[in-house]
Amino acid sequence: MKANITLINGDGIGPEIVREAKKVLEAVSQKYNHEFIYTDIDMGGCSIDKYGVPLTDEAIEIAKSADAVLLGAVGGNVGNSKWYDVAPNLRPEAGLLKIRKELGLFANLRPALLYKELADACPLKTEISKAGFDMVIVRELTGGLYFGERYTKETDGVRTAVDTLVYNENEIRRVAKVAFDIASKRRKKVISVDKANVLDSSRLWRNVVEEVAKDYKDITLEHMLVDNAAMQFVMNPGQFDVVLTENMFGDILSDEASMITGSIGMLPSASLNESKLGLYEPSHGSAPDIAGKNIANPIATVLSAAMLLRYSLGLDKEAGDIENAVEKVLKDGFRTVDIYTEGMNKLSTSQMGDKIVEYI
Amino acid sequence: MKANITLINGDGIGPEIVREAKKVLEAVSQKYNHEFIYTDIDMGGCSIDKYGVPLTDEAIEIAKSADAVLLGAVGGNVGNSKWYDVAPNLRPEAGLLKIRKELGLFANLRPALLYKELADACPLKTEISKAGFDMVIVRELTGGLYFGERYTKETDGVRTAVDTLVYNENEIRRVAKVAFDIASKRRKKVISVDKANVLDSSRLWRNVVEEVAKDYKDITLEHMLVDNAAMQFVMNPGQFDVVLTENMFGDILSDEASMITGSIGMLPSASLNESKLGLYEPSHGSAPDIAGKNIANPIATVLSAAMLLRYSLGLDKEAGDIENAVEKVLKDGFRTVDIYTEGMNKLSTSQMGDKIVEYI
Ligand SMILES: CC(C)[C@H](C(=O)O)[C@@H](O)C(=O)O
Ligand SMILES: CC(C)[C@H](C(=O)O)[C@@H](O)C(=O)O
Repeated sequence: MKANITLINGDGIGPEIVREAKKVLEAVSQKYNHEFIYTDIDMGGCSIDKYGVPLTDEAIEIAKSADAVLLGAVGGNVGNSKWYDVAPNLRPEAGLLKIRKELGLFANLRPALLYKELADACPLKTEISKAGFDMVIVRELTGGLYFGERYTKETDGVRTAVDTLVYNENEIRRVAKVAFDIASKRRKKVISVDKANVLDSSRLWRNVVEEVAKDYKDITLEHMLVDNAAMQFVMNPGQFDVVLTENMFGDILSDEASMITGSIGMLPSASLNESKLGLYEPSHGSAPDIAGKNIANPIATVLSAAMLLRYSLGLDKEAGDIENAVEKVLKDGFRTVDIYTEGMNKLSTSQMGDKIVEYI
Repeated sequence: MKANITLINGDGIGPEIVREAKKVLEAVSQKYNHEFIYTDIDMGGCSIDKYGVPLTDEAIEIAKSADAVLLGAVGGNVGNSKWYDVAPNLRPEAGLLKIRKELGLFANLRPALLYKELADACPLKTEISKAGFDMVIVRELTGGLYFGERYTKETDGVRTAVDTLVYNENEIRRVAKVAFDIASKRRKKVISVDKANVLDSSRLWRNVVEEVAKDYKDITLEHMLVDNAAMQFVMNPGQFDVVLTENMFGDILSDEASMITGSIGMLPSASLNESKLGLYEPSHGSAPDIAGKNIANPIATVLSAAMLLRYSLGLDKEAGDIENAVEKVLKDGFRTVDIYTEGMNKLSTSQMGDKIVEYI
C-alpha cells in the first residue's frame, strides 16, 4: 500500500527517537512492499524558535492531509526552559492541545504493561507485580477541563480564575465505544473511572457509559471513583484490562499507570479521531537532559509506529512484526541504558533501532 | 481545660473506631485533668435513614458550637448500597461536603508516612521504600471543581453536563499559608502541585503560592505538574515533605499517597477553618464489609484525636502522649488484623483501644 506519514521530530530527544522509528517503518515497508511517503513538520519548542508559534496552520494542514502522524516529543523542562516564559498559548504544549483539537483526536490509547524481562524496574514489590499486569487506558482527549472556557478576572483587587469542565453525551459515547471495542479484543472488562459522587459531568459520563455497555453484552463494566483508582493502580494493577476515563483523570492516571510499569521508555500511545487518522507518540517526554547523546530509548516510539500501522493503516501483520521484533530484542538481552541491568548488552539509540530492524 | 467535642459515629465501622478514640481521649483527659464534654450527632447514611438527609441543620449547629469534631466514616459502597439510589445531594458524601462548607474547613491535612514497623505492607519495593518517607498533603477543601456551579442541560435531545473550577486568590493564599506554616515545623520544603501548563486556575495558584513564599524565606518552594506528581509518589516518595494542592488534585493524590504507605488504617486527617475549629477523621472509609465485627483498626481515628488535641485545643503534650503510645504499641508487636504479620500479637478493635490507653 501507499501511505502518507507526517513526522514530527519535536524537541529534546524527539529527533533521535523518530529517526529510529522511521528506520523500522522502512524495514517493514521493504519487507511487505509498501510505499510510505514522509513529510516533516515542526511542532513545539523548535517551531516556536522558527515561527514564533508552537504549531503553524500550514503544519496542521499537512498533518490533516496525511494518513497518520508520528511524533517524538515536544517541550522542555517546565519552569526551566526558555519557552516557558512566553504566554500559555505560545508554549510547546499548546501545539499538542491544538493538534489534538484540529485533528479531532478524541481517543487516547495508552497501554501500560509490565514487561517480564524488565520486571526488576517495576517500583511495586514482587508480591504485587508477580501476577503481571497489562492494561490499556482510554482517555478522552478533546473535551473536559483542558478544553473548556477559561479566564482570569479581577474584581475589587481580587483575582479569580475559572476553568470549565464540559462534556456532552456524544463526546462520551464515542470514546466509550472505542474502549468497549478494544475490550472486545482483550480480556473483556472495562473499568470506567469518574467522580460520580460529586460531579455532574461524571454522572452523565456514568450514565452514557452504561447505555453504551448495553450493546456489548459480553463485556463486563465496572465503575470506579478516581481517588480509588489512584489507589488500586498501586495495590492491585492486575485487576485492570481497559480503563475508560475523561481527559483530566486520564492525564493523571495514565501517567501513574506508566510509572508503575517501571518502563515508561517502552510505552507507546495512539490518539485517534473518527476517521482513521491518528497521532502516535511515546508516553514519555522530551528528556532535554539526555538529548543529542544517542542514549535515549527509541522503543516507545518504535512501538508507536506499530500502533500507527495497526490503527491508521490497518496493517496488523506488519504491526505484529515490529512488536515481535521488540520482544525478541528484549529476550535476547539488548538494552538501552535506561533499562540496562547487569549482564545485559548495552546499546545506543541507533544501535537499538538497527537491532530491531535486524529482527524484522 | 474544658472543651466541647462533637462526635460523629457515621456508618460502617464508624461507631467502633470512634468508641476507641473516645476511650483514648478520656484517658488523656484524666491524666491531665481536662474536662471533655461529648455531643453525638448523626451524619451520612445513618442520618439519611433517620431524617431523610445526610446532615440536618440542627446537627450542623451543634458542630459549629463545638471546639472540635471527631468523625468515624460516612457512606457505604458506592453503587452497592441503598443510599446510592437517592439524589446526589441526599447521599452520605453530601453530608461531608456540606459540613466542610458550613464549618469553612478549607485546609485538609493528610500525613502519609511509612511506619518502620509496618514497612512490609508498603506496596513499593524495598529499593524505594528503604529510605522511608514522611509527607503531609495540604489539600484545599472548600473550593475548586467540587464546589463550583454545576448543571446538566438538554438541548435538541443532547445532554450536556458542566462543572466549574473556581479559585480566587484569597482562597489560595490562606491554604498556602497553612502549608508553609507546617513546612516551617518540618523539613522546610513545599511542593505545590498544579496543571499550570493548561489551567487558568493553576496559573493563578502558582502565582499566589509564589507570593506567599516570599514571607517564608527559609522554606524551599517547588512546583510540580499533577501528572508528574502522580508518578513521583510511586518512584520517589522520599522527596516530598509538604505537598500543597487544590481540592480535586488533592483528593486523588492524597489517596494515592495513603496507599503507598501500605497502612491506610493508620493515617489520620485534619480539616481546619480560619478559627481553631476542626474536623478530624481517619483517611480510610467506612468499610461496611467488616462493620460490627470488632476487627477494624482504630489507630487512624485515635491519631485523628491526637491531631484534634494539637490543632483545635492546643494540647501538644497530650497529643504527643497519644502518638507515643501508638508507636510503642506497634513497637511491642500489637496489631489489628489489617496490619497483622506472623509472630505479632493479634488484637481486636476494642483491645487495641485498651492497649493504647494502657500505654498513656
Ligand atoms: C502537555 C500536556 C498538555 C499534556 C496533557 O496533559 O494532555 C500531557 O501531559 C499529556 O498527557 O499528553
Ligand atoms: C466522599 C468525597 C466527596 C470525598 C472527596 O472527594 O472530597 C472523599 O473522597 C474524600 O477525599 O474525603
